[in-house]
Amino acid sequence: MKREEAIKRLGEIDREFVLLSHIGGVLVWDQESVPSAGAQERAQQLGLLDRKMHDLSASEEMGEILAQLGAAEGREEGEDSLDERTRGMVRQYFRAWNRERKLDADFVQEFSETTNQAHHIWAAARKNNDFSLYEPVLSRIVELVQRKAGAFGFKDDPYDPLLDVFEPGTSTAEVEQLFREMQGDLMGIMDRMREAGPVDDTFLYSSYAQDKQSAFGHEVLDAMGFDWNRGVCGISTHPYTISLGADDIRITTRFTEPSVISPLFSSIHEGGHALYEMGASNEVTRGTCLANGASLAFHESQSRLWENMIGRSRAFWVRFFPRLNELFPIQLEYVDVDKFLAAVNVVKPSEIRVDADEVTYGLHIILRFELERELLSGNLPVSDLPGAWNDGMEKLLGVRPKSDRVGVLQDVHWSMGELGYFPTYALGNLYGAQILHTMNREIDVDAVVATGDFSPVRMWLDQHILRHGSLYKPKDLLRKVTGEPLDAKYFREYLSNKYLGSL
Amino acid sequence: MKREEAIKRLGEIDREFVLLSHIGGVLVWDQESVPSAGAQERAQQLGLLDRKMHDLSASEEMGEILAQLGAAEGREEGEDSLDERTRGMVRQYFRAWNRERKLDADFVQEFSETTNQAHHIWAAARKNNDFSLYEPVLSRIVELVQRKAGAFGFKDDPYDPLLDVFEPGTSTAEVEQLFREMQGDLMGIMDRMREAGPVDDTFLYSSYAQDKQSAFGHEVLDAMGFDWNRGVCGISTHPYTISLGADDIRITTRFTEPSVISPLFSSIHEGGHALYEMGASNEVTRGTCLANGASLAFHESQSRLWENMIGRSRAFWVRFFPRLNELFPIQLEYVDVDKFLAAVNVVKPSEIRVDADEVTYGLHIILRFELERELLSGNLPVSDLPGAWNDGMEKLLGVRPKSDRVGVLQDVHWSMGELGYFPTYALGNLYGAQILHTMNREIDVDAVVATGDFSPVRMWLDQHILRHGSLYKPKDLLRKVTGEPLDAKYFREYLSNKYLGSL
Repeated sequence: MKREEAIKRLGEIDREFVLLSHIGGVLVWDQESVPSAGAQERAQQLGLLDRKMHDLSASEEMGEILAQLGAAEGREEGEDSLDERTRGMVRQYFRAWNRERKLDADFVQEFSETTNQAHHIWAAARKNNDFSLYEPVLSRIVELVQRKAGAFGFKDDPYDPLLDVFEPGTSTAEVEQLFREMQGDLMGIMDRMREAGPVDDTFLYSSYAQDKQSAFGHEVLDAMGFDWNRGVCGISTHPYTISLGADDIRITTRFTEPSVISPLFSSIHEGGHALYEMGASNEVTRGTCLANGASLAFHESQSRLWENMIGRSRAFWVRFFPRLNELFPIQLEYVDVDKFLAAVNVVKPSEIRVDADEVTYGLHIILRFELERELLSGNLPVSDLPGAWNDGMEKLLGVRPKSDRVGVLQDVHWSMGELGYFPTYALGNLYGAQILHTMNREIDVDAVVATGDFSPVRMWLDQHILRHGSLYKPKDLLRKVTGEPLDAKYFREYLSNKYLGSL
Repeated sequence: MKREEAIKRLGEIDREFVLLSHIGGVLVWDQESVPSAGAQERAQQLGLLDRKMHDLSASEEMGEILAQLGAAEGREEGEDSLDERTRGMVRQYFRAWNRERKLDADFVQEFSETTNQAHHIWAAARKNNDFSLYEPVLSRIVELVQRKAGAFGFKDDPYDPLLDVFEPGTSTAEVEQLFREMQGDLMGIMDRMREAGPVDDTFLYSSYAQDKQSAFGHEVLDAMGFDWNRGVCGISTHPYTISLGADDIRITTRFTEPSVISPLFSSIHEGGHALYEMGASNEVTRGTCLANGASLAFHESQSRLWENMIGRSRAFWVRFFPRLNELFPIQLEYVDVDKFLAAVNVVKPSEIRVDADEVTYGLHIILRFELERELLSGNLPVSDLPGAWNDGMEKLLGVRPKSDRVGVLQDVHWSMGELGYFPTYALGNLYGAQILHTMNREIDVDAVVATGDFSPVRMWLDQHILRHGSLYKPKDLLRKVTGEPLDAKYFREYLSNKYLGSL
């Protein structure tokens, strides 16, 4: 195979891979939005797509293409003489090939079908608050994940190859170190906030009309620069963002009566993800595997930067509170911007991760990180998981869940076989704070936010992060943007300024 | 390849084929229900699926499997010693293989992408009432269809191989003969009805609340035996039925204010299709290519039998009119069952096929059949199509469309490249009448309908037609059910009894 032919074939295979991946997106979106009895076959459909994607990336031909372009262990991006775009694609496929060829196609399909069915079993177990329904399939999943980690291979820790799928180039030891530091920071702030006494946030839980909540969310997404010509916003139980095509990026929000916070902040959060997907698909990357975020932590840095660092800032609410007040004059009759701001930033250890505040959120993640490692090593049998969960919650957050439904059954991820995923959420907070610190050196973020038109912020993010898609390794991109490696101190400083200074 | 191996591989390939086809169903459903800018890529996604299905059915391996099982021209079902189910599958794949291997994969993908894009161009042209927007892509489609017919090959008529895709075993000459007879029958009844003078149906066009229309449609679907555990009913501009899985059969209805007829009868119509899909997927056929209707005309026989022959019968409305009256007491204040029945059975030549009554409907189809043959032969350039359409309408129905929007632009089918499809709609009426005639010899259909529980009708249809899926050739199935070949006289008798006797 000649070099030109290899580049051409890589492009063709990539195109097919991306189409299959977007087709999978349609299947997932439909599954989430249309209640139907087709779950079992839908799992088989998704299994078939996964198998086809596996076949494409694990093929002998792919091995030849990558060899022809000079990719090898330690030189994932291939020859220096390749252009940047091709090097990015070579890196992506070398990583995938190097992983996928170690799994046989039957394993891939079994993994996919098991996890797709487990999704529905998990949902039923959660609904019925009955972990025993979920235990058998979760045990099976842990076993499959152990086999996967073994097949991928590792030097230090079986968690390494799993984490690397979601956060390329980051080791378990690095996460452990970052999380140890973060745990101290978070528990310290949490204790200080507890001493400060309770905050009145009851007014957030009165009844707010959905159509007005939608309208407000829409206005905020407008201000962020969400492109309605390329995006759709739907409704689901769990908000998420998904790409069904280069110009078909969908987010959902949720309405959990009675609360005005959840739909609003989930719109901003998913809006942050959507801006990334929209920016990552441009003239250089469009339709390729590069039209994606640099990593999950990078993706999460964007959603959390928008949701928390901007969406819960004083500058934001000085601008938007009057509008909210106009929409909900009765509910907010005795509320001013200070009171509102205090309420949406209340720090309160609780059972549910997705409802957690910025401070306690990371502790929820540390719990999952620790439990995943124990499950993986075999030290923790799945049957003991609910107890270990509750003990961990008590130790880290001082809260013991009242039931498994609000304890070990709350998250979907394990049912999807996605061990190694959770750490990226907390890493996203660390990335986000470091990026915000850099951005603040160049533009006055608060001043921009206060205008109600966030374009300068979005354009800065686009120029420095979004438009690069996954052209670069996440660690390289972070260094390119901020000039240094990941450092937990920026998140500590951000939180200290916010919570221990004045809001 | 051994015989057992051939049977096993046929089953595996079929499973993949059916999964891909259902995945395509999800893509279509999503496209129809979520307005998004992803149309161009969605066309590519559907193109990829079509190509994969083509590759499966046109492969050398498929040729070997079919040869091993004894399939050949004139012996489509393979060896007599095979069981009935395997013979059905062999026939389906021999037909597909024998067609698909004559098309190269690039042609298949081009055809799919062109037609998927054309869908959106057609929609825009229709919206803007501007045929010139549509003309270039339609010309391209006609050219592709001509190439396709040439590749498939034919003895007498280039229309034969196209028709055969949709109605296996039926020739253009047979359709021509049947339609000639039908045209005389329909024009005769139409003239007699014109002489009978106008019918008051104005009350059908007052304002009817959508939620009550939905509730009523739901009750009728219940009575038909629509299985809500395996089916979903949505809303779309053009009602349709689609299978997304063995237990995921979806129909849509439409609400075209102001009218109570359109949503109700479209629910019954699509309900008839859905019952077929539900019945065709059973212990013998489940998950295979046999879990489908025997042909499009057979499918349409079910939807039209339910919609027109049952849904517009006196027995039906004697039972259901009181309920409708209860829901809409104001709109129907001065209406009794006779008046209502006359209104929903009014015969009135008009521009739009999908709104046509049972009598004039077939004339709309004859027009399309004639124009398709002219387009295919090259006698009619696409640029002359609007004029030819209007002339044909005037000749057959005495109506000249006021604009292309309600003329040549009204139907989606040609944008999908589906020349050869329209005749199956009218054949469905002929099949339906012949089936009803047979059913009436065994059960008193009117008496059953009058009870409001249609189970005996559905069970008769299930036993004689639905459960056989596509195990048999359509002509064989019709003979099995009715004891004779297709005869247009049953439809003539049905219409004469209904319209020239007393309603």
